[in-house]
Amino acid sequence: MRIKFPILAIFLEVVIIILFGLFVKYDTVDRRQVYPLFQDVHVMIFVGFGFLMTFLKKYGFSSVGINFLVAALGLQWGILLQGFWHMHSNEIHINIGSMINADFSTAAVLISFGAVLGRTSPIQMLIMAIFEITIFACNEHLVVSVLQATDTGASMTIHAFGAYFGLAVARVIYRPALKNGHKNEGSVYNSDMFAMIGTLFLWLFWPSFNSAIAATADAQQRAIINTYFALAAGTLTAFATSILVEGRGKLDMVHIQNATLAGGVAVGSCADLNILPFGAMLIGSTAGFISVAGFKYLTPFFASKLKIQDTCGVHNLHGIPGLLGGIASIIAAALQVENNLSTGMQAAALGCSIAIALVGGAFTGLILHLPFWEQPPDQNCYDDSVYWEVPLEEPSYESSFHLPREPQQAQH
Amino acid sequence: MRIKFPILAIFLEVVIIILFGLFVKYDTVDRRQVYPLFQDVHVMIFVGFGFLMTFLKKYGFSSVGINFLVAALGLQWGILLQGFWHMHSNEIHINIGSMINADFSTAAVLISFGAVLGRTSPIQMLIMAIFEITIFACNEHLVVSVLQATDTGASMTIHAFGAYFGLAVARVIYRPALKNGHKNEGSVYNSDMFAMIGTLFLWLFWPSFNSAIAATADAQQRAIINTYFALAAGTLTAFATSILVEGRGKLDMVHIQNATLAGGVAVGSCADLNILPFGAMLIGSTAGFISVAGFKYLTPFFASKLKIQDTCGVHNLHGIPGLLGGIASIIAAALQVENNLSTGMQAAALGCSIAIALVGGAFTGLILHLPFWEQPPDQNCYDDSVYWEVPLEEPSYESSFHLPREPQQAQH
Amino acid sequence: MRIKFPILAIFLEVVIIILFGLFVKYDTVDRRQVYPLFQDVHVMIFVGFGFLMTFLKKYGFSSVGINFLVAALGLQWGILLQGFWHMHSNEIHINIGSMINADFSTAAVLISFGAVLGRTSPIQMLIMAIFEITIFACNEHLVVSVLQATDTGASMTIHAFGAYFGLAVARVIYRPALKNGHKNEGSVYNSDMFAMIGTLFLWLFWPSFNSAIAATADAQQRAIINTYFALAAGTLTAFATSILVEGRGKLDMVHIQNATLAGGVAVGSCADLNILPFGAMLIGSTAGFISVAGFKYLTPFFASKLKIQDTCGVHNLHGIPGLLGGIASIIAAALQVENNLSTGMQAAALGCSIAIALVGGAFTGLILHLPFWEQPPDQNCYDDSVYWEVPLEEPSYESSFHLPREPQQAQH
Repeated sequence: MRIKFPILAIFLEVVIIILFGLFVKYDTVDRRQVYPLFQDVHVMIFVGFGFLMTFLKKYGFSSVGINFLVAALGLQWGILLQGFWHMHSNEIHINIGSMINADFSTAAVLISFGAVLGRTSPIQMLIMAIFEITIFACNEHLVVSVLQATDTGASMTIHAFGAYFGLAVARVIYRPALKNGHKNEGSVYNSDMFAMIGTLFLWLFWPSFNSAIAATADAQQRAIINTYFALAAGTLTAFATSILVEGRGKLDMVHIQNATLAGGVAVGSCADLNILPFGAMLIGSTAGFISVAGFKYLTPFFASKLKIQDTCGVHNLHGIPGLLGGIASIIAAALQVENNLSTGMQAAALGCSIAIALVGGAFTGLILHLPFWEQPPDQNCYDDSVYWEVPLEEPSYESSFHLPREPQQAQH
Repeated sequence: MRIKFPILAIFLEVVIIILFGLFVKYDTVDRRQVYPLFQDVHVMIFVGFGFLMTFLKKYGFSSVGINFLVAALGLQWGILLQGFWHMHSNEIHINIGSMINADFSTAAVLISFGAVLGRTSPIQMLIMAIFEITIFACNEHLVVSVLQATDTGASMTIHAFGAYFGLAVARVIYRPALKNGHKNEGSVYNSDMFAMIGTLFLWLFWPSFNSAIAATADAQQRAIINTYFALAAGTLTAFATSILVEGRGKLDMVHIQNATLAGGVAVGSCADLNILPFGAMLIGSTAGFISVAGFKYLTPFFASKLKIQDTCGVHNLHGIPGLLGGIASIIAAALQVENNLSTGMQAAALGCSIAIALVGGAFTGLILHLPFWEQPPDQNCYDDSVYWEVPLEEPSYESSFHLPREPQQAQH
Repeated sequence: MRIKFPILAIFLEVVIIILFGLFVKYDTVDRRQVYPLFQDVHVMIFVGFGFLMTFLKKYGFSSVGINFLVAALGLQWGILLQGFWHMHSNEIHINIGSMINADFSTAAVLISFGAVLGRTSPIQMLIMAIFEITIFACNEHLVVSVLQATDTGASMTIHAFGAYFGLAVARVIYRPALKNGHKNEGSVYNSDMFAMIGTLFLWLFWPSFNSAIAATADAQQRAIINTYFALAAGTLTAFATSILVEGRGKLDMVHIQNATLAGGVAVGSCADLNILPFGAMLIGSTAGFISVAGFKYLTPFFASKLKIQDTCGVHNLHGIPGLLGGIASIIAAALQVENNLSTGMQAAALGCSIAIALVGGAFTGLILHLPFWEQPPDQNCYDDSVYWEVPLEEPSYESSFHLPREPQQAQH
């Protein structure tokens, strides 16, 4: 790692700078004021995804840190790959809208990262980002420009794509030694609290995510409203279902951290359509319920029977709800909530996204599996100390109270 | 809980979806660009209030999680109840401004939640949200449309209302067994750090909260400026007073987490008025001082003599400063800082808000007190493990250094 | 402290309120919609800087709390001092743009605070804020209005200035007893996690910081784009260099928390210029590399040979990258990337900023060194308990699992 990682990272950065030097110029200012939407999406990528994954008790540095690294690489590569499909006279012109789309392509990688979280090296994640964004950009071009399907909130092109890509990678790099789990693969109280920071910023800014590339001011506002209510409804059903499925009738933080977001994923494809707020709430409440059921019943099944280890349960938050979102858009087309919607194109978009994700993920998994890239040994999975210097010296206040100390009284 | 909570939550969501289906449509796009203001308010509701209450060392999951649940329900119910007062041809038309107002109605509930934090069940909080928002919407209609008082930053209709409603509930559900406190009712180092996340996001975005429903661009800018300076001045006096009142001349995190916000509450009613920045700072600095004094002297008095247990000290942050804000608006009317202000209407608005809050809160407290809803037993108050699965397995890095471990050196 | 701090804080607030009452009025609404930019900068000042410094394991309350206090004072004083240079008919007219600039002046103080973090008292920091902002405003006037140099992202006037001012203060208040470090001067796992909250919000919102005072919409967009890519490129090189320089080939959280931001500092002076995205990435990637090298090799040298104790390594994040930014602007002027750029003026601006910072900082250090202000004793440096009541009672869930407890099973 000591040599390979710096060489790879610097090599990639040099290549990217050269490509930027050759092709990338400023575009004119965006037609609409999208910078606030961009900032919200940006926070979701780095704080939302980054902290959501810090629930792992010994993997917080990697969760937020490698998320940081992968996203920083991904947004640069995303500008190039997405720009490639939209070149004008051999130039890529970028504005805030391009940055939003670059962050979007990164989101797909971070979703996949969640599936394999804890079982890969930073080098593998850089490689995965390069391959996944390349494939993502091709699929995005296919869905948006060729099939001309609608997927403004990207249920299909980001969420379902990222989830199934990640699951395919996970299947290829399956670790038999971890088939009964790993002692590090859990949370502690404070790590669950840190994860809630991620959850909340994702939840709060999802309306921006789903409306960022809407075509008109009206569509943008519909997308904001629909997402807001899909999330609210999904939150209620997620809490309810969590208590229903738990053995002792208690809430499970894994559900509250993740399944409460499923409504935002599922309403994505239809967010800007005229589905009415109650339509968004139907989609959202269904997603919240199904997501919790997935965490409870599907993820263990995937791990034990399908040999797919899905650390963050991305299938339950992005996979199935993404599928749901695509299906909702097919139904919306059938119901003709707007003109220019075609059930055939929506279905094709969904099918292609998932198929390309699975094939592309399996292929990328084979690349990642090459021993050259290094990966953490089985016993050191879900453990920061493989790749980070972890502080272990003098105690802090949190943990020192059971040691003899100077007499100080508590205040509260 | 295992059965009642899911049934209640799903029942409420079904009713809400049906009502949305019958009545709620999209409105035209907002006249002014209010989405950035909405996003700031939204962060305050979920991250600000949610994390501010995580100071309780064993109640962090509930503080942020039940805040999340209650707010998700509240904003949906708020759209309906506030929309009821503004229906057009039997329809409720919603835009971003409606979502801001829905978040506002939720704020009142979360303030009340702070008073009873740790001594209620999630079921009780769902019920409180339903009743409180209903009463809130009626009072808001009274103050804004009937009395036509000014209260742009809602010192009276949200802060004072939420605080006195919550205190009335607290009085009704008073627990004699906890009259000398509870061993879980305190903080630890990290929980105080998490709470500062909440404090800062509330502080930073309060100018948006106080300006979100301002009528003109000029009024909006005045509200932003006035709030910014009221908070800054109040922060200085809060720090100063904290050291003055503490037995050993040290800062108390409870004050820094809460009283530094009092300026924003107190300037609320006058935020958009022409009170000049120094006027805002007078209000703010007074509020910071009074708030700390309240935490130090009033809260213990309330608990021991008035049988009002106020976990978060909402009376000191929202109650008295809200009162202060209403009084400031009466003075502003008397000084005629703007036309169309009437001391009589301002005073009536303040009186009504507090009276309706007290009566409504007492009534709601009686409802909550019905054994059917369940509540945590005395010894399990302020304890997440009643309603949550709390992780208690293998140690993390934070706490493992005093156990024998593999040789790893610290870096820093 | 018990008496001096409240007296000083209240005295300062009273003086400020009087000066506001005499001079400060509302201006007309800003020409461009800058409130979203202001909010981003505001979050950087209070959450970004505040939490970045919480890496210190026993100093989190002070890091985020004294940052809060100093910033609240600083923005008020900044309005006055900067406003003094722009008075109209004996009045200071303020709008959102003024608030952005006030936050900017505060940033310089918080950077200096980072150099002396842990070794000062709150009183000293209030004094430093008053002096530093006064000197900052003079230098800013010199650079922007007299020399008419360009420094839109303030590499010179905020970052280099704040760093060298802080280092000069640190030199004057050098503590020989701490020449081999201090046992409290390090992090623990959770404090490093809290610090990442600060890092990420600084990183995410830096495009707003660098574009907030851009003159035109085009320049603003260029600044956003250039900063976004400078940061991304610098992040890759920071990660790569961190692994290269660490003895065991692992990532060091200090580098990831700080050096990943260097690109934003270094591109500051050129952010709004037509340097092309790849130009920004060249600047950023260089800064990331140099910053890590500074943390590894320069900071120990400064402490042992130059007697400059720099707690947060501000020289590596703000000092050298700020210098780099000034130099980049000299090169940009030489390359004539835009008209009206003069290498002479850029160089003069850089020289003046650093010279005034060093002299001003030394002078301020002498003031701070007066025993009257109090400072923490050597053995209590980097320790919250000197100025805060620190909770030390009953254990939380995090630390209680090794004590005998009621049988509760983990869930994950």
